[in-house]
Amino acid sequence: MKKDMGAKIMLFPTPVFIVATYDSAGKPNAMAAAWGGVCCSVPPCVAISLRKATYTYNSLVETKAFTINIPGENYAKEADYFGIATGKTEDKFAQTGLTPVKSELVNAPYIKEFPLNLECKIMQIFDLGLHTQFIGEIGNVKADEALLESQKPMIEQIMPLIFAPNSANYYTIGKEVGKAYSIGKDLM
Amino acid sequence: MKKDMGAKIMLFPTPVFIVATYDSAGKPNAMAAAWGGVCCSVPPCVAISLRKATYTYNSLVETKAFTINIPGENYAKEADYFGIATGKTEDKFAQTGLTPVKSELVNAPYIKEFPLNLECKIMQIFDLGLHTQFIGEIGNVKADEALLESQKPMIEQIMPLIFAPNSANYYTIGKEVGKAYSIGKDLM
Repeated sequence: MKKDMGAKIMLFPTPVFIVATYDSAGKPNAMAAAWGGVCCSVPPCVAISLRKATYTYNSLVETKAFTINIPGENYAKEADYFGIATGKTEDKFAQTGLTPVKSELVNAPYIKEFPLNLECKIMQIFDLGLHTQFIGEIGNVKADEALLESQKPMIEQIMPLIFAPNSANYYTIGKEVGKAYSIGKDLM
Repeated sequence: MKKDMGAKIMLFPTPVFIVATYDSAGKPNAMAAAWGGVCCSVPPCVAISLRKATYTYNSLVETKAFTINIPGENYAKEADYFGIATGKTEDKFAQTGLTPVKSELVNAPYIKEFPLNLECKIMQIFDLGLHTQFIGEIGNVKADEALLESQKPMIEQIMPLIFAPNSANYYTIGKEVGKAYSIGKDLM
């Protein structure tokens, strides 16, 4: 039997994207966004949604740029900190000891220690309600070279964080379930 | 060292949302979408991006409604089939043996066997390029009652699928890494 839960955000998985920006004074800052995902393949675009009250919001509007940095499970503590502290009063890079590196492509820093960094230019901004959605065109992805040397799928090397709305905890990926565009052929 | 990969969709995790709709003849259909995510908390909204060439595209435009159905790892084969077959020529519900149930709230069917169903009304449509983004307001979530009876977090009961772009395979979640809004406090 099904139970009606009402109008809730209850779906899995949601990602843990660490969104890095420069503020108006040029100070690097980062926050965690679980509301987001890929939104277009050509041009390659990713969407992130933020509340106007976040410190990052103004930075996005001003710089029209951000990076998405994918933390592995080994950076769960830092990822969570990025989500609970505010750049208004804290220097989150100093506090975590992580390294902001200026992107050569967009006006935003990326996080050196995180294995994957997407450099994005904001193409469109949609005000949806409490959250505003920023559509970023991915101009380049920086990947740790070690990720490319292994035969193992990138996701298994990174072990990215997954956020679970509802219970509000983090997971990482588990076992491979099958090949996409393949295991479903049995049903055709 | 970092290597520049160019303008690619390379980020993790992305979800496996099974989007169900009625076509203009009232035939239920479903497809898999990995391009999507939550985009607003108030009102609660979820975004999905589809190519115009999909059979679902026209159904969304016509009915202004869809459901998102979250498959567990036990339905990986069906989820993949929904992604590779087309509703133009195939009756995907007949082929999978899954049951479409008419939503009482929106003009779309949900998948009875899947543990979580989000009933969504389309609020906005944004043409972004190859993909069009549909913003759906979540009017209600239907959850299997069994999910609510357990003390275990919902995500661990569902074991949702995760899609890995780049290697194109499915995973499910692994171990819990920590509590959100909590483990980062050590750094404050």
